[in-house]
Amino acid sequence: MKIVQCVPNISEGTDLKKIDRIVAPLKNQKGFKLVNIEADSDYNRTVITIIGDPDEMINPLLKFIENAKLEIDMNYHQGEHPRMGAVDVIPFIPIKDVSMEECINYANLLAEKVASELTIPVYLYAEAAKTSKRRNLPTIRRGEFEGMKEKITLKEWEPDYGEAKIHPSFGVVAIGARLPLIAYNIDLGTDDEKIANNVARAIRKSSGGFAFVQAGPVFLEERGHVQVTMNILDFKKNPLYRVLETVRMELKRYQVAVLGSEVIGLIPKEALLRSLRYYLLKDNEEYNKEISFLEITNLAKKYLQLRDFDSNKIIEANLGD
Amino acid sequence: MKIVQCVPNISEGTDLKKIDRIVAPLKNQKGFKLVNIEADSDYNRTVITIIGDPDEMINPLLKFIENAKLEIDMNYHQGEHPRMGAVDVIPFIPIKDVSMEECINYANLLAEKVASELTIPVYLYAEAAKTSKRRNLPTIRRGEFEGMKEKITLKEWEPDYGEAKIHPSFGVVAIGARLPLIAYNIDLGTDDEKIANNVARAIRKSSGGFAFVQAGPVFLEERGHVQVTMNILDFKKNPLYRVLETVRMELKRYQVAVLGSEVIGLIPKEALLRSLRYYLLKDNEEYNKEISFLEITNLAKKYLQLRDFDSNKIIEANLGD
Repeated sequence: MKIVQCVPNISEGTDLKKIDRIVAPLKNQKGFKLVNIEADSDYNRTVITIIGDPDEMINPLLKFIENAKLEIDMNYHQGEHPRMGAVDVIPFIPIKDVSMEECINYANLLAEKVASELTIPVYLYAEAAKTSKRRNLPTIRRGEFEGMKEKITLKEWEPDYGEAKIHPSFGVVAIGARLPLIAYNIDLGTDDEKIANNVARAIRKSSGGFAFVQAGPVFLEERGHVQVTMNILDFKKNPLYRVLETVRMELKRYQVAVLGSEVIGLIPKEALLRSLRYYLLKDNEEYNKEISFLEITNLAKKYLQLRDFDSNKIIEANLGD
Repeated sequence: MKIVQCVPNISEGTDLKKIDRIVAPLKNQKGFKLVNIEADSDYNRTVITIIGDPDEMINPLLKFIENAKLEIDMNYHQGEHPRMGAVDVIPFIPIKDVSMEECINYANLLAEKVASELTIPVYLYAEAAKTSKRRNLPTIRRGEFEGMKEKITLKEWEPDYGEAKIHPSFGVVAIGARLPLIAYNIDLGTDDEKIANNVARAIRKSSGGFAFVQAGPVFLEERGHVQVTMNILDFKKNPLYRVLETVRMELKRYQVAVLGSEVIGLIPKEALLRSLRYYLLKDNEEYNKEISFLEITNLAKKYLQLRDFDSNKIIEANLGD
């Protein structure tokens, strides 16, 4: 049985009732499970995770996008996270018995319906991108909702589906396929965004850091501290512990500590095990990879200082049965 | 006045008298100084550094290469460092009042003479490379002395100067121009090469690590421990302290410590200051960039655990007066 993870991000992170109405079509469906809804008010963005049979997802996703179109007017949206649409991005991620090629097909299938049935222009990104320039989501999104009005009219930014004209209240959406990535954020014990920026520059690929880390600084007003917000594109080559320990090391020059860290959406079990192994070996503790999801969760909270984390955020804990 | 640094590497690191005879033409010359001779018996390789007026360097360098041709027979050479010639590589590095373009011209000037007067084939590498494939020295050198006999006869590996036939005892030489790099090695308190290999993979670009770090493992038989041997191609983006601290962090899982570290050849003052600043700020000590070469040296020994280091290894300590 094919298992795909799909992680739409919507540009609403504050009004929980509104989020609930938008997400309703993804609830209690046959063939896939809604496993996580993560609203962030500083980002004013919500990350939704569904897992299951991709064939069953397409129509509910279409209804969900339609709801977002009804509920969200991007002309009034403000938040710390860059965004270009009411539903900003929808990746399909192969988990089990499904190829990347198939996920690219699902992305195209959904994109075609979104453009033709909802009159929302779509960019295909990541593995589904038609040109190398469109592989990188931040490149597509540069200019954000406000700039897309103009950008979409340029020949080189013609959308992959739909007309070259943003939807006036929804904007545009990126739909794609990619390997699992880890959205990982580290909280710093300071409100100085310059420090978060320096640390982000030390670790991210684009300024000479780790090859599979994208990172940037953000000030979390509600929490009163800054954060290094990241995507880790290959957790085997750039494991979480290495990123976290490098951040801890860089912070020492500022006499600043890590307050905690968080995973947005889900994380593969293997990504946690790789990091727990480092810490257990370092502490001369026994490492046994046959540990339960609960033990993994407790160790991850201890060593990675994970907050707002429970076993349901581990992908594999949502499979089977 | 133009100042260039030139750092020929020869494939002899054991016989000090022989090295002395080879290097003699570079000693006591007008216009440039021989500032460092660094022989390594495990590598069986010596790194020689001269600094000064590049116009004055060409003829003495030619005589030096001729001496190496007389003294070294590569058919009998063994050592831990990959190599393809009796003189293996000669980079010209712009230091002051001289452009990269000019350094490329000096590389070509020397290469032409080496091929025509000494019948040694030459590959131009790094900034002097004529094709992108030849920018990377390890790519040119793959196969080493033993493999070059065959490799040089392939159309794509035709040398830039000289005939497509290695010199039977000298081999071939790479001559080029590049920005200053730092040859930096970290000694690990273990003889397990697998550990050095894992650590090298964690930090080097080619396996997902820092963008300007090349790294590999080596076992130093004479010293009885392994080493992570590195080139740091951009010390501003990948400062020494970050590399060293990441290595220290990775080693914790093996319960192994760093024994020390070493800089091969010379290092720009700025590269040390950037790292000292990190450690001083971390330790809540005052940082004053107007410190003497001696103070820099002492602090670098303390914080970077540098061995075999003195002020003369700082490039700027060899300029002026």
